[in-house]
Amino acid sequence: MSTLIFATLDYIGTLSFAISGAMVGMKKQTDLFGVLFLAVVTAVGGGVTRDVLLGNCPPKVFVDWRCVALSALTGLIMFFLVRKNNATYLDKVELVDRINNIFDALGLGVFSIIGVQVAQQSGQGDNLFFAVFLGLITGIGGGLMRDVLVGEIPFVLKKRIYAVASIVGALTYALLTRTNLHEPISATLCIALVFTIRMLATHYSWNLPRAL
Amino acid sequence: MSTLIFATLDYIGTLSFAISGAMVGMKKQTDLFGVLFLAVVTAVGGGVTRDVLLGNCPPKVFVDWRCVALSALTGLIMFFLVRKNNATYLDKVELVDRINNIFDALGLGVFSIIGVQVAQQSGQGDNLFFAVFLGLITGIGGGLMRDVLVGEIPFVLKKRIYAVASIVGALTYALLTRTNLHEPISATLCIALVFTIRMLATHYSWNLPRAL
Amino acid sequence: MSTLIFATLDYIGTLSFAISGAMVGMKKQTDLFGVLFLAVVTAVGGGVTRDVLLGNCPPKVFVDWRCVALSALTGLIMFFLVRKNNATYLDKVELVDRINNIFDALGLGVFSIIGVQVAQQSGQGDNLFFAVFLGLITGIGGGLMRDVLVGEIPFVLKKRIYAVASIVGALTYALLTRTNLHEPISATLCIALVFTIRMLATHYSWNLPRAL
Repeated sequence: MSTLIFATLDYIGTLSFAISGAMVGMKKQTDLFGVLFLAVVTAVGGGVTRDVLLGNCPPKVFVDWRCVALSALTGLIMFFLVRKNNATYLDKVELVDRINNIFDALGLGVFSIIGVQVAQQSGQGDNLFFAVFLGLITGIGGGLMRDVLVGEIPFVLKKRIYAVASIVGALTYALLTRTNLHEPISATLCIALVFTIRMLATHYSWNLPRAL
Repeated sequence: MSTLIFATLDYIGTLSFAISGAMVGMKKQTDLFGVLFLAVVTAVGGGVTRDVLLGNCPPKVFVDWRCVALSALTGLIMFFLVRKNNATYLDKVELVDRINNIFDALGLGVFSIIGVQVAQQSGQGDNLFFAVFLGLITGIGGGLMRDVLVGEIPFVLKKRIYAVASIVGALTYALLTRTNLHEPISATLCIALVFTIRMLATHYSWNLPRAL
Repeated sequence: MSTLIFATLDYIGTLSFAISGAMVGMKKQTDLFGVLFLAVVTAVGGGVTRDVLLGNCPPKVFVDWRCVALSALTGLIMFFLVRKNNATYLDKVELVDRINNIFDALGLGVFSIIGVQVAQQSGQGDNLFFAVFLGLITGIGGGLMRDVLVGEIPFVLKKRIYAVASIVGALTYALLTRTNLHEPISATLCIALVFTIRMLATHYSWNLPRAL
């Protein structure tokens, strides 16, 4: 996959998760710094966790300011958009939830696929378990940190086929890269797959079973 | 200590902490993925933290699928055992608590000792502080992550001589390896020591003092 | 900057954050181990996070016992001071809060500056973003872990110009080291700057804006 497409995907995922993080911060009434911090952590948390686990230190986002700047700027824009929005408090919360949900699904798709790509570049791409695991960590890591930071049991542990969507997308992508299919097409398909599963799960309230 | 015994211990600790993680997940009403995720995180969290702090990246559990598979499978079995159990909700919760407690104590013992073994293999075994510190981190790390993930103040910070049991076991083991005692015997003794302290502390409600 | 001044600063920051961690632990009614653990985590958490992100493993504090011993001892002393204090429960909580606040501000100042120093020693000192980022992580990392461990939304995300003080201090210090100003003077000035911003923000209840 060309470097350009890889970078574009990375920016789309970063932007999406930054929006999601900012939305959760606002809902939890953090201050402006909290909103920006949650935007950045949600956007880069999965990738940083992956890099630290791989021993790729310092992670790129600490050396290259652009990713953090993009996340923080995104958080800032969302902050003022929500603040200026002429709506009642409850309408705002509902709007914030809906926006969060869409972009979170997009970020999940993109980062799950990027995680697999990083696994394949690390020379262990033949290890399917490793590839899917890195996809999952990259996909859910940022949202997990976001939820722990605001004192919530992470969404991914509770409902709506969240991690399963990431695993299905990462596994499909890892398998498709073993075929002759053009890589950008595989990536786009798998991101759409993750996004669709998440949107359907939200719309139809699909949940995995519980024990108690 | 022979590789076989080391590996056996590792599996016992993994199994025990996976059960503990799954139990906490069920009690907190996470979905099936949440139960499996908590089983895996509790089982491998301490070891991964230790490996990352030592710079041993990627940690073995991300490359070798067996440990994660064992933890997830254990979580899955516990999930269906608890679900099928013909008991009232409250009886189930109490049962879940008791099972969690026993296996958590066993996992704590095993992983505290494994942490010391890893410290000794890292070439810094003479540093008693380092050895006990790694034992403690390996012992309490997984349970700490488990509790933070479900939004609880970690059990280890609150009551029942938990970390102290780990420290006593790790320290005793580190000192015993300096004697002529056969290593498997030292390990078994120290695991039993940690387990016994924890069981007694639970039974007799032993607590460290509080300030307020 | 001479090694001696660097080490002295490190001890002042460690001591301050250890006091802060112990105070929060007592307020949350953790047991004695919980108080010592929170003292240690708050004191070393920021530095350990920074070291792990830089790939400096194992972090110094795991090999050299003095920093952890100092933090734990500090926590122990605070524990008995608060316990023996002849005051009502509410008076104690208020006292604990005030002490926590002062030392937390001092620790924030010291560690923000140390983070920049470490960045400059890592050979990337010219990268202003990297230097300020490491300053911020070192400054807020320990307190963030402390708050997550006791189940609170981190203070730094909520109010009182906390992270902004760290960023202003780190940035000013990074810029001052490019001038001819004697380094100990720059460091002292910037620590005082962070401390003053925090004290004023607390006194006058300065907050960043919120969205909802």
